[in-house]
Amino acid sequence: MKAIVTILLKDGVLDPQGKAIGQALHNLGFPQVGEVRAGKVIEIELNETDAAAARTAAEAMAERLLANTVIESFKVEIAG
Amino acid sequence: MKAIVTILLKDGVLDPQGKAIGQALHNLGFPQVGEVRAGKVIEIELNETDAAAARTAAEAMAERLLANTVIESFKVEIAG
Repeated sequence: MKAIVTILLKDGVLDPQGKAIGQALHNLGFPQVGEVRAGKVIEIELNETDAAAARTAAEAMAERLLANTVIESFKVEIAG
Repeated sequence: MKAIVTILLKDGVLDPQGKAIGQALHNLGFPQVGEVRAGKVIEIELNETDAAAARTAAEAMAERLLANTVIESFKVEIAG
């Protein structure tokens, strides 16, 4: 199975990278752009056949290594 | 509408960050981890009511600024 962990800064945490991207998109001629948030995505191949076990493992990985849960939130998706 | 642009290195392009994460997860006691790929996710608020127009705009942003299409591939999702 594959686990896809998406990590974004929590609401209220300043995101200068997102701000810079938003500004650059405006300058490139995309006036419809509003707030931009930049984050990370990590795709993990898991040698695991049970989706629930894969999710539990991926959440533990996110908590322990991938995300800084003080300032970041994460979401786990499990793909076939 | 919100556009979610996910950017990953193309298959065949070395991903040292992903390799390092995979190694760290092994060392932390997750032996079931196989290949790991690290990428970026960018969430863009769009002042746009038409989903097709939002997708076209987000794809243009990804091509022109967000992704390096020589080595990266991207995927656009449109959320309500």
